[in-house]
Amino acid sequence: MVVSEYVRNLGSDHEQVVPVTMFVAVLCLCLVIGHLLEENRCVNESIIAILIGCIAGTIILLLSKGKSSHILTFNEELFFIYLLPPIIFNAGFQVKKKQFFQNFLTIMSFGVIGVFISAIIITAGSWWLFPKLGFVGLTARDYVGWLVQKLDISRIDSRTALHVIGDFFYLFLASTALGITAGLVTSYVLKTLTFGRHSSVREIALMILMAYLSYILAELLQLSGILTVFFCGILMSHYAWHNLSENSRITTRHLFATMSFIAETFIFLFVGMDALDIEMWRMTKLSFGTSMSIYSTLILLILLGRAAFVFPLSVLSNHMNRRAKRTSVITFKHQIIIWWAGLMRGAVSIALAFKQFTYSGVTSDPINATMIIDTIVIVLFSTLVFGFLTKPLISYLIPHHETIKIGQRESSSPREDLNTPLISLEEPTTSNITRAKDSLSMLIERPVCTIHFYWRKFDDAYMRPIFGGPVTSQSEC
Amino acid sequence: MVVSEYVRNLGSDHEQVVPVTMFVAVLCLCLVIGHLLEENRCVNESIIAILIGCIAGTIILLLSKGKSSHILTFNEELFFIYLLPPIIFNAGFQVKKKQFFQNFLTIMSFGVIGVFISAIIITAGSWWLFPKLGFVGLTARDYVGWLVQKLDISRIDSRTALHVIGDFFYLFLASTALGITAGLVTSYVLKTLTFGRHSSVREIALMILMAYLSYILAELLQLSGILTVFFCGILMSHYAWHNLSENSRITTRHLFATMSFIAETFIFLFVGMDALDIEMWRMTKLSFGTSMSIYSTLILLILLGRAAFVFPLSVLSNHMNRRAKRTSVITFKHQIIIWWAGLMRGAVSIALAFKQFTYSGVTSDPINATMIIDTIVIVLFSTLVFGFLTKPLISYLIPHHETIKIGQRESSSPREDLNTPLISLEEPTTSNITRAKDSLSMLIERPVCTIHFYWRKFDDAYMRPIFGGPVTSQSEC
Repeated sequence: MVVSEYVRNLGSDHEQVVPVTMFVAVLCLCLVIGHLLEENRCVNESIIAILIGCIAGTIILLLSKGKSSHILTFNEELFFIYLLPPIIFNAGFQVKKKQFFQNFLTIMSFGVIGVFISAIIITAGSWWLFPKLGFVGLTARDYVGWLVQKLDISRIDSRTALHVIGDFFYLFLASTALGITAGLVTSYVLKTLTFGRHSSVREIALMILMAYLSYILAELLQLSGILTVFFCGILMSHYAWHNLSENSRITTRHLFATMSFIAETFIFLFVGMDALDIEMWRMTKLSFGTSMSIYSTLILLILLGRAAFVFPLSVLSNHMNRRAKRTSVITFKHQIIIWWAGLMRGAVSIALAFKQFTYSGVTSDPINATMIIDTIVIVLFSTLVFGFLTKPLISYLIPHHETIKIGQRESSSPREDLNTPLISLEEPTTSNITRAKDSLSMLIERPVCTIHFYWRKFDDAYMRPIFGGPVTSQSEC
Repeated sequence: MVVSEYVRNLGSDHEQVVPVTMFVAVLCLCLVIGHLLEENRCVNESIIAILIGCIAGTIILLLSKGKSSHILTFNEELFFIYLLPPIIFNAGFQVKKKQFFQNFLTIMSFGVIGVFISAIIITAGSWWLFPKLGFVGLTARDYVGWLVQKLDISRIDSRTALHVIGDFFYLFLASTALGITAGLVTSYVLKTLTFGRHSSVREIALMILMAYLSYILAELLQLSGILTVFFCGILMSHYAWHNLSENSRITTRHLFATMSFIAETFIFLFVGMDALDIEMWRMTKLSFGTSMSIYSTLILLILLGRAAFVFPLSVLSNHMNRRAKRTSVITFKHQIIIWWAGLMRGAVSIALAFKQFTYSGVTSDPINATMIIDTIVIVLFSTLVFGFLTKPLISYLIPHHETIKIGQRESSSPREDLNTPLISLEEPTTSNITRAKDSLSMLIERPVCTIHFYWRKFDDAYMRPIFGGPVTSQSEC
């Protein structure tokens, strides 16, 4: 009695115990079901997590007699402080550096110009169409606040475009510099202190903590933590990782992938559960028909907005490459894949929507409720429908023998592959941006000989001796 | 401006960002300094973390102009939900199973009878001595609430001893059963689904999540999560670990050690920082002399209380072993080491003190403040002084050549060693209980041939084929 009383106090004191238990149990279920359905190539972990989240939400809804479908209110702090960093860090850590940097200009133009074009189209389109569909009450600020995909969602109203661009470059450069610094400091410490021999625990801990420190420091300095931790991941896989002992190398590369995987599954699970938030549905006050037409309009606008920059920019990129006498181009088939794969709106959108339109996960305004519902519906639809069709689309556009050919071409540079930590690991569903970049990098190979050649020389002569990593005996170009 | 405004909102919304940044930065510092001082054999990570915590506390105290020394209020939820499970799980995961179970009865008698004897002596002693020292105002409940070492701190007043014992056994058996079930289910799932080939991420994630699920489920069911996750760790290292792919094995064993290491360093850092909580010191209202005499009395009582069970129980254990014709005995030197090593009061004590005497980290009662200060002082003193002297004491009592002899004796059973995942890993400073148990297990070797022999037979014939792990061709006894 005495002991159990003690423990009872312990249990009742922790209000988080029940939701955490539920979430961990459902996560385990996701893993096992995800593995069982692995043969079915159309289904990925995100889809399963969303579906299981929906089922769990339904069960909770029934058990709580229609009161609430979610057991944990969405805590954006949880998301920004704990869930997002491992996802982005892992994306940086496992990015195929060579392809990423060779296509750096194309990727940046897609990222920056693309977002502006697509934001303008979606904003203008919804401004023009929504009142006709019977959905009124949005302010101008709400319109431009559609959270489409990325951090730098434009609130261009009454500000000069120049300011925006200047600010963007400051943010980009400062964040990147911080990430690079954190990566280099870690590499240097790991190399000079030679932890290796007996303390793998210490070197692994240092790497995790420094990566996290770079993210949280960027947030503290009001920079973009996402950019910082992404570049920190790239630097760490390029230098720091090589200073670790063999066991620590295996551990870190699997550990980062696992952390990212758990964080993503968790978010998708939450999205599935939140889709059934009955209070929010009640609050929207829109008829079924109006809602449906809004969703279809939005999805069409997103399709259109993405098409409006993928195809022109690809043509432009091809043109530039031909002028620079580079061999490979983005074929039309590849353009379709780039267009399609980027349509999937992910967990970040949901988080931003909650941040924008609620106060700590709760909203009382019907307009705000509608905005959140819209975001959730679009994430659900794009992940489930577009995600489901991505693999068949790729197999249809690029038959298997062609993929092999690309694979062979890629593997003609084995030296870089040896330096890339994450070759044999199957990639968990990473965030959209990275996914798009990755497919881009894997499909195209275009050697930027000049810059790359000098970078390799500089890297081998000055960087690697200080920060670690194998020195290549010769450059590839 | 637009972008930076967005980011500024992001930063200011998260009040946790500043403390988290500080803690992570100081943790990194601890790691590096800990590594640099590694040659000095007297200093361990806990001592460094406490000292750095004190220094950081002083700096914060000066910066905040004497207002507060801690940047994060002690959140017992943080401790019980996130920091404790990895420490205990890792202790179970890396425990030397053979020695642990061979000495199971001795360990249990030390754990259970020992705690009772020591609790009675300390309670009675402080009851008798404290009023003489000028410290009055404690209720009977406060006296018996001295948090000495373990979960089942006795509140025996007005309850029958029988009830306590019955309850203890229920708690012990139910928690153990839950932990064993969780371990076996994980092993079975990992074995039958054969994740291995391409999805190390999934199997690692499943193992982490199941281990955590067992802990949090035990807390939910008002059992002892500590016992559950400890046995879950033992079962997982005995079965589940063998079902993993080679890379996952390396990853899990390093990952668990790293998580445990980070959690412990974090706690000790917090203790160091909290020692300078100026408000609490002001609140105690006791003179310096009175405080000092209370601390010395408590430390003396703890020394006495531990001596009162270690030596008699060791003699009893030796007597039993002689009757059962077992060879090895606990020599007097070993008894001194067991007595001494268990004197270190650790992070769990602090957490329990905060839980007992504060309301979410804040207290307004001077008596309660005194109790917390006492606990902190004792943890500081025992970790710094006793901890500092432990290694010299062991070297003095057991010279190096004897240690080697013991090592040779131990390694005469290589087969079991092969099955133990954590051989080559240096052990981070684990919780006191485990440390005591471990030194106990490592110092003594006493084959319990009969039980062990039949267990091995049963294990090889029925358990391992179902749950995984290599089948030994012959037993050792």
